[in-house]
Amino acid sequence: MSKTQKPWQKKLHEIIYEADTPAGKLFDIVLLIIILASVILVMLESVKSFEKHVAILDTLEWIITILFTIEYFARIITVNKPYKYIFSFYGIVDFLSTIPKYISLFFGGIHALAALRALRLLRVFRILKLARYLGASKNLTNAIKASRAKISVFLFAVLIVAIILGTIMYLVEGEENGFSNIPKSVYWCIVTLTTVGFGDIAPQTPLGQFLASLVMILGYGIIAVPTGIVSSEYSNQNKNSNNDNKTPIVHLNSQSCANCLASKHQDGAKFCHNCGHPLH
Amino acid sequence: MSKTQKPWQKKLHEIIYEADTPAGKLFDIVLLIIILASVILVMLESVKSFEKHVAILDTLEWIITILFTIEYFARIITVNKPYKYIFSFYGIVDFLSTIPKYISLFFGGIHALAALRALRLLRVFRILKLARYLGASKNLTNAIKASRAKISVFLFAVLIVAIILGTIMYLVEGEENGFSNIPKSVYWCIVTLTTVGFGDIAPQTPLGQFLASLVMILGYGIIAVPTGIVSSEYSNQNKNSNNDNKTPIVHLNSQSCANCLASKHQDGAKFCHNCGHPLH
Amino acid sequence: MSKTQKPWQKKLHEIIYEADTPAGKLFDIVLLIIILASVILVMLESVKSFEKHVAILDTLEWIITILFTIEYFARIITVNKPYKYIFSFYGIVDFLSTIPKYISLFFGGIHALAALRALRLLRVFRILKLARYLGASKNLTNAIKASRAKISVFLFAVLIVAIILGTIMYLVEGEENGFSNIPKSVYWCIVTLTTVGFGDIAPQTPLGQFLASLVMILGYGIIAVPTGIVSSEYSNQNKNSNNDNKTPIVHLNSQSCANCLASKHQDGAKFCHNCGHPLH
Amino acid sequence: MSKTQKPWQKKLHEIIYEADTPAGKLFDIVLLIIILASVILVMLESVKSFEKHVAILDTLEWIITILFTIEYFARIITVNKPYKYIFSFYGIVDFLSTIPKYISLFFGGIHALAALRALRLLRVFRILKLARYLGASKNLTNAIKASRAKISVFLFAVLIVAIILGTIMYLVEGEENGFSNIPKSVYWCIVTLTTVGFGDIAPQTPLGQFLASLVMILGYGIIAVPTGIVSSEYSNQNKNSNNDNKTPIVHLNSQSCANCLASKHQDGAKFCHNCGHPLH
Repeated sequence: MSKTQKPWQKKLHEIIYEADTPAGKLFDIVLLIIILASVILVMLESVKSFEKHVAILDTLEWIITILFTIEYFARIITVNKPYKYIFSFYGIVDFLSTIPKYISLFFGGIHALAALRALRLLRVFRILKLARYLGASKNLTNAIKASRAKISVFLFAVLIVAIILGTIMYLVEGEENGFSNIPKSVYWCIVTLTTVGFGDIAPQTPLGQFLASLVMILGYGIIAVPTGIVSSEYSNQNKNSNNDNKTPIVHLNSQSCANCLASKHQDGAKFCHNCGHPLH
Repeated sequence: MSKTQKPWQKKLHEIIYEADTPAGKLFDIVLLIIILASVILVMLESVKSFEKHVAILDTLEWIITILFTIEYFARIITVNKPYKYIFSFYGIVDFLSTIPKYISLFFGGIHALAALRALRLLRVFRILKLARYLGASKNLTNAIKASRAKISVFLFAVLIVAIILGTIMYLVEGEENGFSNIPKSVYWCIVTLTTVGFGDIAPQTPLGQFLASLVMILGYGIIAVPTGIVSSEYSNQNKNSNNDNKTPIVHLNSQSCANCLASKHQDGAKFCHNCGHPLH
Repeated sequence: MSKTQKPWQKKLHEIIYEADTPAGKLFDIVLLIIILASVILVMLESVKSFEKHVAILDTLEWIITILFTIEYFARIITVNKPYKYIFSFYGIVDFLSTIPKYISLFFGGIHALAALRALRLLRVFRILKLARYLGASKNLTNAIKASRAKISVFLFAVLIVAIILGTIMYLVEGEENGFSNIPKSVYWCIVTLTTVGFGDIAPQTPLGQFLASLVMILGYGIIAVPTGIVSSEYSNQNKNSNNDNKTPIVHLNSQSCANCLASKHQDGAKFCHNCGHPLH
Repeated sequence: MSKTQKPWQKKLHEIIYEADTPAGKLFDIVLLIIILASVILVMLESVKSFEKHVAILDTLEWIITILFTIEYFARIITVNKPYKYIFSFYGIVDFLSTIPKYISLFFGGIHALAALRALRLLRVFRILKLARYLGASKNLTNAIKASRAKISVFLFAVLIVAIILGTIMYLVEGEENGFSNIPKSVYWCIVTLTTVGFGDIAPQTPLGQFLASLVMILGYGIIAVPTGIVSSEYSNQNKNSNNDNKTPIVHLNSQSCANCLASKHQDGAKFCHNCGHPLH
């Protein structure tokens, strides 16, 4: 494929990769609906009472698979460097979310299909890609990024506490009360520390219940820490962005380069900031 | 009904629609008690052990229905443009919360009554209307409004995580451990991520329990995000309102225009800010 | 009892009511231990396996009751206006926490004792009184006070949501799935919204589980609100107290007036700020 | 052992006690992996399905025990004052985490081994020691320290509420509904207040469910308090550290004195700040 694009390629690129034009917006919304429909389809297939409608579900699945196939090839032929798209994260997701139905033609066993279903769900990440444009706050993303390292260290400490307390609970309660081994005890400890509390395993001895109370009060106290971190970081992000009001603001649009797929170009930009390719 | 109101209409309008005069306050409190009594009545009717007192409950329900009917017509005759009230949100709620008992005269089946009970509960929104006057902080409302969009995007992301993890749990645990289909697995995943943890479904396999632990620790980490957002936005609202102290503050009272029902007039206002109608 | 106190009365008053002298501190610590011991005793009495040690528990209970009796009369004879102490909140608590064992002499039935046990626990409030001196942050108390009104309005709104959603769940799930009446459904809804999730009642129908998911995500979103309020108010309190550093700080001690029991006198105060009675 | 160290001792000291050199870093990472492996081993030993592999697990345990033994003696011979290391906290942990396997040679009963397993887990604290270097935020640690006292007072108040409410629930629900004694009721109350909600015990009577609802709403309201405290303190720490940027910053490295084991020396320091011993 040559460096210069034909007019119809340019037009198609705009529709598929950008959300600025009415046609581009329509494409994204239709895609979102198809993805949601395919996810619901995967869910319904697993429900027992829908087994009698297997023919309808199969037909719908074929329609969606064909639509995804068309979309996949349209994406390939409208970019200058197709291999870049094919081996990008979203390229692989697109491929894996299209292929399962074709594979089922050759290896149509029940068990194989079940494993393939999980792959199909990766399509949902597409929606996440759209969610990015839907206006998730930059401050929020920054706050989460800034907190991530601290929360990781914190969760690591929680995990160690869970292992130690889990072992103690295993020794105290023993196998006869459901704490049949240390991994299961640690699992119970995480269930309790995070205040989920399924109740499938619960301490029965007075000493076990006393220790469980300590674990819960501990969990109650430490649940405050990650919340405090995010809350504080988010406040900082807000303050910083308020101070930044004096610096000139540049609006980035959702336009994406036909050559290198880089997005987030400034309004009025004529060349891609990444590869220098002209932006139509 | 003419544009000019008779004196008794003005008097009644003041009592029903405003909470500034002693009579108006008394009316609101009596109404609140009747609404609460009617809600408790709806609840008691569903309790088995109260079935023997069905005659008493029925009589009380008739008394409340008649009181609501009187109130409904009083509201209509005291405003200049009754159709505006009738088709307003609270007008429809008032109508729907009064009508069920009359309908039960003609279609008195058990099942129909059950469906009507739900409608009756809409009366409770009246109390919310009063709660507005009880002094819910403006800052709080603003903070929730400012956070709403961000929390929505966040909850959408949580939902996608729940769908993906739910499908994985369905494949890992399978039907024999209660994860009988993907929607049920997603339901379990939401139960776990939100730290509710009913325990009606719980992972039984070691791998399932390991994945559940990851889900819980993830839920523990992300519960911090919406809290951080609200907390930070609320702080901002507080700061802004502190800065606004220099601008002149105008007190709005709960007076409501007899012509267009617009409320929140300035103290000492002589004409409605919405339609120009004189305020008594 | 005359307005002037005898020296031994003054001495005893200092020990019992004040925590500044070594003797006063020792008295408070001993009292705290006795109260904790009595609470543990009440707990143990209810445990089946301790029923064989009933004689020991009874003896210990008599010792504690006699100690409380002595303390009660010592408090009465060391203040100038005993009736003021007797009818104060702590006076009544002291009386009620001492009397049960004496009553059991005359009406020694099992059921009567159970009801009296609850009264005994009011002794624990004594510890709270001490906790006040142990240094609970003033900022924290102020933040809770400032947030209380807003949190109340918020919890009221949560209650209304619980009633409406509870009724809908009752109609959807019905009696056969444990939602046997509306109050029970509302109870389930509160259990779910607060993320407690006992699991004694859990939705069984797909529609019920879908609605439950919405309730949980809603609860997940709104748990953020009270946290945000307290967190923000507490930050404000901290800021204000930092600004207040320029105003002169007066230290209040735990000394309490022998005449009117008013406490929190300034260091070096010679007369009670409440009744003008000399402070020894 | 003399005050002066031989060259190989200096070299070994650097590797074992410091994380600045490549060899030191490698040593720490290898140690971390061994500790994690030993913890996983302890867990697997408790799992029923691994009982047939007892020979392999036993061999692996012996390898790890010997590695720990070598490490323990290497630590002793490379410091100038071995007794200081032996009786330090980490010295005791090292000893206790190495000894169990040797003890099992003499008293190889099943029950004795179970008790020893708990001791082995103390090895995990080693990882915590490393976590310190991995970059846990100083602000976070300070915020937790600053909040600790207030959260303790708060949790103490929660405990008292749990005792009082637990006793009331015991009286209301009684033994037939699982609230078989007051300690168990208090345990249930803590489970509920912390929003864990196992569901092994759940109120059955309408009054009990009503009281439980109050407990849950209370818990919902007060979960906000510790979060608010940490969040606010953490914000303060961040602000203070921003202001402190003007004061000269000194970088502390992880180097540790060969004589007194004191760590946290300034970059470029030539003598131990604690004992004056030259730092290699």
